[in-house]
Amino acid sequence: MDRTVRIGMLGCGTVGGATARLLRDHESEIIARTGCKLELVKVAVRDPAREREIELPPGMVTTDPMAVVDDPSIDVVVETIGGNDPARDLILRALGNGKHVVTANKELLATHGTELMTEAARRSVDLLFEASVGGGIPIVRNMKESLAGDRVRRVMGIVNGTTNFILTRMSEGGLSFADALAEADSLGYTEADPSADIDGHDAAAKIAILASIAFEGRITYADVETDGIGRISQADIAAAHDLGYEVKLLAVAEQTGGAVSARVHPAMLPKTHPLAAVRDVFNAVFVEGQEVGELMFLGRGAGGGPTASAVVGDLVEVARNIVSGGSTPSAGMDNDIELLPHDEVRARYYLRLAVADEAGVLAAIAGSFARSDVSIASVRQEGRGDEAILVLITHVASEGQHRETIDAIEGLDVVKSVRSRIRVEGTREQ
Amino acid sequence: MDRTVRIGMLGCGTVGGATARLLRDHESEIIARTGCKLELVKVAVRDPAREREIELPPGMVTTDPMAVVDDPSIDVVVETIGGNDPARDLILRALGNGKHVVTANKELLATHGTELMTEAARRSVDLLFEASVGGGIPIVRNMKESLAGDRVRRVMGIVNGTTNFILTRMSEGGLSFADALAEADSLGYTEADPSADIDGHDAAAKIAILASIAFEGRITYADVETDGIGRISQADIAAAHDLGYEVKLLAVAEQTGGAVSARVHPAMLPKTHPLAAVRDVFNAVFVEGQEVGELMFLGRGAGGGPTASAVVGDLVEVARNIVSGGSTPSAGMDNDIELLPHDEVRARYYLRLAVADEAGVLAAIAGSFARSDVSIASVRQEGRGDEAILVLITHVASEGQHRETIDAIEGLDVVKSVRSRIRVEGTREQ
Repeated sequence: MDRTVRIGMLGCGTVGGATARLLRDHESEIIARTGCKLELVKVAVRDPAREREIELPPGMVTTDPMAVVDDPSIDVVVETIGGNDPARDLILRALGNGKHVVTANKELLATHGTELMTEAARRSVDLLFEASVGGGIPIVRNMKESLAGDRVRRVMGIVNGTTNFILTRMSEGGLSFADALAEADSLGYTEADPSADIDGHDAAAKIAILASIAFEGRITYADVETDGIGRISQADIAAAHDLGYEVKLLAVAEQTGGAVSARVHPAMLPKTHPLAAVRDVFNAVFVEGQEVGELMFLGRGAGGGPTASAVVGDLVEVARNIVSGGSTPSAGMDNDIELLPHDEVRARYYLRLAVADEAGVLAAIAGSFARSDVSIASVRQEGRGDEAILVLITHVASEGQHRETIDAIEGLDVVKSVRSRIRVEGTREQ
Repeated sequence: MDRTVRIGMLGCGTVGGATARLLRDHESEIIARTGCKLELVKVAVRDPAREREIELPPGMVTTDPMAVVDDPSIDVVVETIGGNDPARDLILRALGNGKHVVTANKELLATHGTELMTEAARRSVDLLFEASVGGGIPIVRNMKESLAGDRVRRVMGIVNGTTNFILTRMSEGGLSFADALAEADSLGYTEADPSADIDGHDAAAKIAILASIAFEGRITYADVETDGIGRISQADIAAAHDLGYEVKLLAVAEQTGGAVSARVHPAMLPKTHPLAAVRDVFNAVFVEGQEVGELMFLGRGAGGGPTASAVVGDLVEVARNIVSGGSTPSAGMDNDIELLPHDEVRARYYLRLAVADEAGVLAAIAGSFARSDVSIASVRQEGRGDEAILVLITHVASEGQHRETIDAIEGLDVVKSVRSRIRVEGTREQ
């Protein structure tokens, strides 16, 4: 063993610091597993004086990221700064200089993934990004490699830990959305601005990446139909429990007749579905393959240790490729792919309607469903008088049909308001 | 693309037939993913007249397995016959002839894994066996590659679908063990002789393989302490539910102070533990990594489609290695490793004791625990008079201490019998 793979790192926050620590503490195992030494040689940071998880030798630290991406002695660049700017330019430059790149940057991949993949392929270098989705859960590698002999039909994920924590507390602790959000905040689970989590945008970036790999085509953040959990009430949670369901924020990508759709929204899942048991800040990705059937990968979707574990796993892969002369297969994320118009996506819905408590209400509502050719799987009334509520679950129909039905229902005199509409997933009927 | 990887197959039953079908039906995707064609050229079967999932051209079929392993035009041999004999000799011969081998044979790997690995390394060929544990669940690849930057502390798996189905029916349907077994049988989930499943031997072979990969050392089937589910009663299931637990057949491998232990036994798991929600015939492997924390991989552990999906995934990896000139890293399964004596393994126990209903019973029993230095976490009495039952849960102690305590309790006049003893896993205290 005399080969050394030299690593440069951009950023040294929570993930970068944990990565540096792992490379140091696991040095001997990594040598045994790769046949070479992984040596961190340069780290670009904004503030060299900041306290970090491990102390970096003064000569290793620079404030100039170009000193990392342009250093001819560096073999691999690890990017942990996040966001599009300046990460995109730095990674393109590192790839252009013939360096392998490992990144945890979901925003960048979900927006400019194709451009980066193309550049990596042109320079015949590896661009690996296991840590960008699901933290320490090895979902990217599994999609690209383990399922390479199969065909993926659908991917459903709980890929945002903050919202899953909030929904778990609402379900198990009976908390309101506001109280559960406050508890998440007090535990440090929220960002300064929680809207990227709550409104589903973080999950949308991740499902764009997963959909690109699963269906081997270009799907970006902008292609994902996104809805958040801000409107989920205790009444919805209670109704879900009564019906044998849990409410989860799901990221779904599926292939229907050759066209692909991707979406993020709250959904009711049967309690017996493996995703329904994913609690607290855990993430999980459920994959339906043609041959393999249902698979699920569960783990911690965030945090320094889990994310750094995925980054170092990618570095081990790059090192093995350097030693063996091999390369990691491209994910084919840059192929053109047909996107299914959102109105044609098929789903079931739970609807909660405040209605007048009088004869003929159900007939009027059922008529609206019938006119859009949406059939009703179950209906029941809760409360009487001013509190009369109708809870309906539909069979599968297109989003266009559902929208048409709901518009019609909202126009009925006997319907005071549509209190909530939540998709129902994970049932046999899809 | 003009490279063709030529495949020979030993056996063509459920898994072999599904593998042949996948290679045919997914030909174009596999070419796109590997850069070469995977062509099945020869299949050795015992009975050429047998009805199969796909029709094989007459010229492809032989009854002579040597015609496969000695054919110089064949690059990869897929072994799907199972068992040690003649699979071991055939695989050694194929490896000796410089062929890559893909196998689904858990018995063989759990018994002769080291010998096969050594021969594969000597000839610099790939020996892949994703399908040997957990059917379609990509657990072997994840341990070898995704976790290569981390350290595994413990692996806990539900790796036998038949027993998990039986325990699910006992838990959810209230069935007796005998009735649940009969139902599994009527659904075709049992082998002709169900004892390998029921008594834990199938799970023991699988945890030996997983432990070897996780801890990079030689652990064989004979090293696994094994107990089955035949003694689990409805009374145990009911007590588990009362305490907030589910009963599962767990396969556990863990590293304690440098020494490794592996065992299979029924265990009580908190209902909130991800493994407790694994139902029916599903399998799942729960991994605790030093950095990544808890990971779980869930899926279908048996069946032609899932198992063949894993076999073809391995074939795709071999083909990529052939094209790139790379090789799959060895799992290090042949290293010497220290095994922890079974008496030193640490666990918690649930105990169900039939006792005399009189003053001083608890004092006598508690005294026996105290003398072995085992502390009691909770105790409660169920029933009165002749039906008096004491249910205890201990804190963590060594198996040796637990054995000593139980021997002492069985000798007490006030204890009629130890009705059951089941380990408690998955709690914070381990």
